[in-house]
Amino acid sequence: MPAFSDDRLRITYQLTCMPGEDPEAKARDIAFEQTVELPPAIVPPEIAARMVGRVDTLDPLGGSRWQAVISYDRVTVGIEVPQVVNLLFGNISMKSGILLTGISWQTPLLERLGGPAYGIDGVRGLCGIAERRPLVCTALKPVGLSAAELADLCFRFALGGIDIIKDDHNLGDQESARFRERVARCQDAVARANAQTGSTSVYFPNLANGSPAVTEQVELARAAGCRGVMVSPLIVGLDTMRWIARTTRLAVLAHPSMSG
Amino acid sequence: MPAFSDDRLRITYQLTCMPGEDPEAKARDIAFEQTVELPPAIVPPEIAARMVGRVDTLDPLGGSRWQAVISYDRVTVGIEVPQVVNLLFGNISMKSGILLTGISWQTPLLERLGGPAYGIDGVRGLCGIAERRPLVCTALKPVGLSAAELADLCFRFALGGIDIIKDDHNLGDQESARFRERVARCQDAVARANAQTGSTSVYFPNLANGSPAVTEQVELARAAGCRGVMVSPLIVGLDTMRWIARTTRLAVLAHPSMSG
Repeated sequence: MPAFSDDRLRITYQLTCMPGEDPEAKARDIAFEQTVELPPAIVPPEIAARMVGRVDTLDPLGGSRWQAVISYDRVTVGIEVPQVVNLLFGNISMKSGILLTGISWQTPLLERLGGPAYGIDGVRGLCGIAERRPLVCTALKPVGLSAAELADLCFRFALGGIDIIKDDHNLGDQESARFRERVARCQDAVARANAQTGSTSVYFPNLANGSPAVTEQVELARAAGCRGVMVSPLIVGLDTMRWIARTTRLAVLAHPSMSG
Repeated sequence: MPAFSDDRLRITYQLTCMPGEDPEAKARDIAFEQTVELPPAIVPPEIAARMVGRVDTLDPLGGSRWQAVISYDRVTVGIEVPQVVNLLFGNISMKSGILLTGISWQTPLLERLGGPAYGIDGVRGLCGIAERRPLVCTALKPVGLSAAELADLCFRFALGGIDIIKDDHNLGDQESARFRERVARCQDAVARANAQTGSTSVYFPNLANGSPAVTEQVELARAAGCRGVMVSPLIVGLDTMRWIARTTRLAVLAHPSMSG
């Protein structure tokens, strides 16, 4: 997508039209549905001019398919992840023949939302690795083992040279290995192994709660000495992941559960 | 689905098999994938017996489709909404030919997770309505209006007899009507209208943040006098909705944005 000089967010959709369906009307419907969500006739003109999405381009892709680029004013975008998701594909997720194929992020929006707090070089640093070699990561499982058994696995993984040992995403706060005990024991096991080997394996517990339990889990993980955590953003919440990444100094490993 | 005397969670999936794909193997793969996520040969026997999902039934639906009922031990289910979602359809959301068609909730799990805090009778009570008549609800919009303009709409909606006035789901914390000012003004407008008419319209602001900003928004809404809020659970987080419903005494109106 070409560069633009303004700060509108541009979203590309692939439209598949039913027989008799007008691609222009379909694109315009998206622009209204994702912003003012009102019939055009009753939208105040100054609101319509600024807030309704603008269909910048509409091009045939062959057959019944079209590509529409719709741009949105920064006020409608806001700076909250949930609202950005609403704007991208919220209500129209319930309509047919609409595929989101591209997002042209403007730099100011990216800066306000924030990206990775560490990035791959930062994570290498957490693991005490100076050279640019691949990192070795494993998942701690299966569910059903006790906290002590999982910690024993952690110890052996760390002795064996695994860089990142992460909870499996199905480890929550089950009675077989409660979060508090599991995190304390596993982090301790990794620290003991590191003391033996002189390396710096890290353990990332899985955070599987919403507000405010997730903030308690963050504090437990930090208090135990963990340097990072795992989150399934599509289950726990995209903005919760953003908050952890931006404010806690914990590295965040995202899991694709429920991402379809 | 028939009643069961144990407390296992039973999930029904419709499987669509590719040519040559074995429905039994496909069902067993789900049972392992959603629990221990390990090759069967390396799962400790006592873990396999208890933690791996059990394929209770597998029935042909005609053509290449089969119906599998898989049940899970309550330890794998846990009591956290994100972990329940993981178990239901987390990793297998990324595989093909699997449709989740039914969940047989056991009463103990429902009791631990909790359902609606109000229900329809409770919401009628919030609106001061004694008889069992339909409630009238409208959305406050469009995005782009100022907090004062939105509050003026609220005032007129409440004068007109609308029971529930909810923020549109695309109202977040945009600069055109910041959350704090919008909620204070809109709630005040509804209270003034109620004082004139003697009725009890309610205003539900839209909470569009993750931890811990959503807890701040909850407090702002409560401090302003709001009796309920709106949340898009699939964007903000299912467990965040559960937390609001269970602990704040605010009624929660769920919005289907991103529910596909």
